[in-house]
Amino acid sequence: MLAPSIILSHPQLGENIGAAARAMANFGLADLRLVNPRHGWPDAKAMAMAAGAANVVEEARVFATLREAVADLNVVYATTARERGITKDVLTPAEAARRLRMASARREKVGILFGNERAGLDNDEISLSDCVITIPTAHFASINLGQAVLLTAYEWFRAADVTPPARLEHGPIHRKPTRAELLDLFDHLERELKESGFLFPPEKRETMVRAIRATIHRARLTYQEVQTLRGMIVALAKGKHRRRKHAQDL
Amino acid sequence: MLAPSIILSHPQLGENIGAAARAMANFGLADLRLVNPRHGWPDAKAMAMAAGAANVVEEARVFATLREAVADLNVVYATTARERGITKDVLTPAEAARRLRMASARREKVGILFGNERAGLDNDEISLSDCVITIPTAHFASINLGQAVLLTAYEWFRAADVTPPARLEHGPIHRKPTRAELLDLFDHLERELKESGFLFPPEKRETMVRAIRATIHRARLTYQEVQTLRGMIVALAKGKHRRRKHAQDL
Repeated sequence: MLAPSIILSHPQLGENIGAAARAMANFGLADLRLVNPRHGWPDAKAMAMAAGAANVVEEARVFATLREAVADLNVVYATTARERGITKDVLTPAEAARRLRMASARREKVGILFGNERAGLDNDEISLSDCVITIPTAHFASINLGQAVLLTAYEWFRAADVTPPARLEHGPIHRKPTRAELLDLFDHLERELKESGFLFPPEKRETMVRAIRATIHRARLTYQEVQTLRGMIVALAKGKHRRRKHAQDL
Repeated sequence: MLAPSIILSHPQLGENIGAAARAMANFGLADLRLVNPRHGWPDAKAMAMAAGAANVVEEARVFATLREAVADLNVVYATTARERGITKDVLTPAEAARRLRMASARREKVGILFGNERAGLDNDEISLSDCVITIPTAHFASINLGQAVLLTAYEWFRAADVTPPARLEHGPIHRKPTRAELLDLFDHLERELKESGFLFPPEKRETMVRAIRATIHRARLTYQEVQTLRGMIVALAKGKHRRRKHAQDL
């Protein structure tokens, strides 16, 4: 699926072009188009800021007018922060990403248009786009150009991202314990706690044991951690015996 | 609900601290904590970059150690780009935001920890946190500190944002037409098209009319636009009459 083209209209600062390129590379976008950048092109500051995304900057194309920059696209969404009084669909970045993916899946060429740092897009530029994207914010709504590209590109990526929301990071040695290995840990710990006098008074023992087991379950131990805990129990119990022996010696 | 504290461990550049502050203000976060910033504090560059978010920078607190910076928090999530080989839950920013909101709703004080620009968090810093947040990216995974704070803060905001995914922006004069007003437009247009000879041949007339109506429905016109379209029809039809008259005069 072809990712959206990013069109920056009259960008003022090379740093922001570089930041936009970097954000694009972070989220799998590659086609950067510049309409009449203020400081000309190529721009050393854009290159410096892009860092590892130099290829996006190197392959950026410059156009004299917005009309030329979007000529081959089928769908163009414009980003604006302010209400414009134009009757147009206003989308969140997430909804825009969803629709752009549907369009791209139909083999339509899609693009997202960003205004310059000072004034954003003017009404004439917006009138060339299908829809408007507005990033929802708290009271302080001023979003930098590079950051606006970042959030829009992030939502494009996110709309098809299959990263599990939560995963337990572990290497091959960090396998889950079998239930038997976990129950052996319970037995070992409870035996030592009983001997040490911790599980007292006897009528509360079962409740205490169940609470300790719940703590251990919640930790979702690996096999390696079960072994480490058993080693810790052995070491602590030894210490206790040492201290007791030491006390007897006195 | 208390928003997360943002803790920057050993940040190197004031510009990035300022960008982080700005991103925080965009998404309703206010408590910035700095562990031993490289260029001391206060930092003029942080102030300049923060722009409208100066108050976040002004109220930032500096700590000598990470341990002190997180002492009063109940929940701390650490952001990392790389796999660390530590057995810890790794969350997407969206899932982290969901869990942090649940914790904050239970009146737990929550924070998100970011490493420095050069090396990120070290394993010892990560060992002080409950979970790890990793931002999913395309192949190019290097995310700037300010941008990492932006995406994390954005997801916090987004998790409770009630902005409708799509809305039609319009002012009070842009009311929807009644069905009668829309049907009057259909009648007017179809009458003029019939007179002009456009709806030809007659056996295809109904199909053509239905297709034109579908186009108009899809545009979801406002009342004002219905009136404008009717004015356009009158003007174009007049022109046609004028041209016809002109042709007769020749």
